[in-house]
Parts: sequence; structure tokens; C-alpha cells
Amino acid sequence: MNVREIQRRLADFAEQRNWGQFHSPKNLSMALAVEAAELLELFQWLTEEESREVAASEKEMALVREELADVLIYLLRLADVLEVDLARAVEDKIALNEERYPVSLSRDRAEKWDRRET
Amino acid sequence: MNVREIQRRLADFAEQRNWGQFHSPKNLSMALAVEAAELLELFQWLTEEESREVAASEKEMALVREELADVLIYLLRLADVLEVDLARAVEDKIALNEERYPVSLSRDRAEKWDRRET
Amino acid sequence: MNVREIQRRLADFAEQRNWGQFHSPKNLSMALAVEAAELLELFQWLTEEESREVAASEKEMALVREELADVLIYLLRLADVLEVDLARAVEDKIALNEERYPVSLSRDRAEKWDRRET
Amino acid sequence: MNVREIQRRLADFAEQRNWGQFHSPKNLSMALAVEAAELLELFQWLTEEESREVAASEKEMALVREELADVLIYLLRLADVLEVDLARAVEDKIALNEERYPVSLSRDRAEKWDRRET
Repeated sequence: MNVREIQRRLADFAEQRNWGQFHSPKNLSMALAVEAAELLELFQWLTEEESREVAASEKEMALVREELADVLIYLLRLADVLEVDLARAVEDKIALNEERYPVSLSRDRAEKWDRRET
Repeated sequence: MNVREIQRRLADFAEQRNWGQFHSPKNLSMALAVEAAELLELFQWLTEEESREVAASEKEMALVREELADVLIYLLRLADVLEVDLARAVEDKIALNEERYPVSLSRDRAEKWDRRET
Repeated sequence: MNVREIQRRLADFAEQRNWGQFHSPKNLSMALAVEAAELLELFQWLTEEESREVAASEKEMALVREELADVLIYLLRLADVLEVDLARAVEDKIALNEERYPVSLSRDRAEKWDRRET
Repeated sequence: MNVREIQRRLADFAEQRNWGQFHSPKNLSMALAVEAAELLELFQWLTEEESREVAASEKEMALVREELADVLIYLLRLADVLEVDLARAVEDKIALNEERYPVSLSRDRAEKWDRRET
């Protein structure tokens, strides 16, 4: 994915509509959370098993794809406005997770690193 | 950003810890929403103006970068589990937004397309 | 629960700290969403069955109680700031739900009324 | 507000539709977060000042009231399923907040107690 290119298109889209006034980091973080919740809504009454089977339903997947896109769009826009290098941020976070969740302590266990009982 | 490569690393990370059992789409959508809210929390008491100034604070930006990374990580993982082509989904959504938000109707107006008053 | 009394205490609490400046409806809606996500976090990796068993864990329930209280506190505060009669709003919504979800169409079905297939 | 009475009505509503199967704490926490985000959506592009003026718009307030009711309904339902005494939980949390946010340290400052710089 060409992140820079998508961000440039999103910036153009906003500029053509004079939406810079609305795209404060505060507002974009709200829009991102709203879209994440719309994704959540698609799964809220499904069992975990049913949620795995969603992949086989073209109709449900059309909704899922659209919500995933919405989340990503606001994420890219917010990262652009705040000049965050997302690829780098993800690299750093994966490295941190490797420290926080060593295989020996995390196998078959989902608990958060700072709630782990020794 | 090499999305495929990051997704492969995230899949390996999960597999090494036998976390496939936890990574149902339902659970991943919850984790994504939780991370989006942690980002939201960073901006909740700031004015919009202050939220723009966050870009100048190294300390605040370290927190923002980490939350953006967390959101992106779960987004990439969920897209992988459901076999969604994110770049394509974003392309399609931008095209749809161009229809829904023509410049003539959307200039200086943030209202949602389906709540627009004619 | 004496809603009015709790709202009066929360208003006093805010006033003593001169927090009216922070308690715009926009900000309170963010705080509410953040607390709702902290509740969500407690259940994100649990199976549904495990989430039912949380009731038996004093330690987990202490966390759940605190998050439920946080959500309710911001809900009461927001309703107060916007002068919403919550009891009345709930009455009205239950009545609406009875229309939208008649037993004959909703038995054993969780789908949303506006996505129901006839 | 007669919380017990509302909870009894919500429990009856669920039972008549055999919805106990869907109302696991996990699922209810998702529904609560989704409704909180629908409230958030109403304020996402408004300035804080505009969000205060929402109180004067009958049309906007009808939407706000409905979302506040939805959040409260799932909150009451979840508290019922997990047998949490909400009034007590709120009392305890207000007392804790009084300790965490003494007037002397919190006047005109919205920062979270555990991020406060001494």
C-alpha cells in the first residue's frame, strides 16, 4: 500500500472541501473511534465462531470491508495531520510487544503484560 | 508501507504464542475499538486548538504514535484474518466518498451525506 | 437511585474544581466513550462463557464495577449538562423498542430492526 | 429513577424474545460501546461551543436523548446480568475521585490523576 499517495489524496479531498477546519486531531480521533465502533457493531451479537464464518458471506464482507476502509482512512488522515511515520511506529510497537510478550510467558495466554501474575 | 510483510510478522507473532484461538474477528474488532478509545483519551480534555499543538510535544507524540500503531496493528490483523485487501477497500471507499460528498454540496460543511438537508 | 442527587453532587464536584470549562457535551461524550471502551477491554479476550463467569470473580468484578460507575457518572453528567430527563428518555426508548422488536419477529433473533429481512 | 423496575422490564423484554443467549456480559459491553460511539458521532464535527448549543435544538436533542437512553439501557442490563449495585458503585467511585482529585491539585486542570506531574 502506498501510504503517502493515499494520504495525499485524502489531503486533497479535504482541501477541496475546505475541511481542514474540521480535521483537528481531536475531531479525527473521534471519527476514528466512531468508525471502529461501526465495525464492532457488525460483530456484537455473533458468537466468535459465527464471526469467523463472516469471511464466507459476501454480503457481510461488503459491510466489513467498508468499515475497515473507514477506520484506515481516518487513521491515515490523523497520522498525516500529526506527521507520524506509521510504518516506523508499527515497527517500534512490534519490537516492544516482543519484549512485553515473550513466548514463554504468553503461550495460550491473552492477558495484558501489565496484568500478568508472576 | 509493506502491508503484506507486516501482516506476515503479526501472524507469526500470534502463531508463536498460539493466539489464533483469541484472534476471532469478533475479538479483534473489540481490541481495535479499545485502542481507538485509548487514542481518543489523549485528546478528550484538549480544545481543538490544543489538539493541533500536540504535534509539537515530543512527550505527547510518543503516546499518540503508540496508540496509532496499536490501532493499525489490530486493523492489519483483522483484515488478514478476514482476507480483506485493504488498499482496494480504501480505493473503493474514496471513490464512494467522492460521489457522496461532491464539492458543491460539501464545501465548509461536515454533515454526513445521509443527513444532508436539500 | 436518586439521579437528581447524584447529578447535583457531580455538578458540585465539577464546580469546586472549575471544570465547567472542560465539561462541554462534546468532551463528555468522548469521556463516556473512553470509559465504555475500558469496560470493553475487560471482556475482549474472554469467551462469552468466560464473560458470564466473571460474576464469580471478586477481583474481576471490582474492575467491572468501577468501569460501570465511570460510564454512569459521565452519562449522568452529560444528561445534566444537556438537561435530558433520563428516566423519560429510557421509557420512550423501551416503548419504541417494543414496536421495533415484536416478539413474533424477534424471538431467537438478534438482528437490528432496520436490517431485518422480511 | 427506579433502576430495579427498569431492569425488571428490560429482563422481561429479553426473556420474551429468548435473548438471554445473546446477552452475555461480553456482548452487552460491545453493545454499550457501540451506543456510546453513536452519541460521540453526534458531536464529532461540532466545536465545543456548538456542542453546548445543541441543547437549544429540538431536532438534535431528539437524537441525543435516544442515544443517551440506549447507553443507559445497556448499562442497566449489564449491571443486572452481573448483579452490580450501580448506586453503590457510583457512590464508591465518587468517594475515590474525591481522593484522587483534591481541589488544590485539580483546580482548572483536567489531567488524569495518574499522569499528574508533581
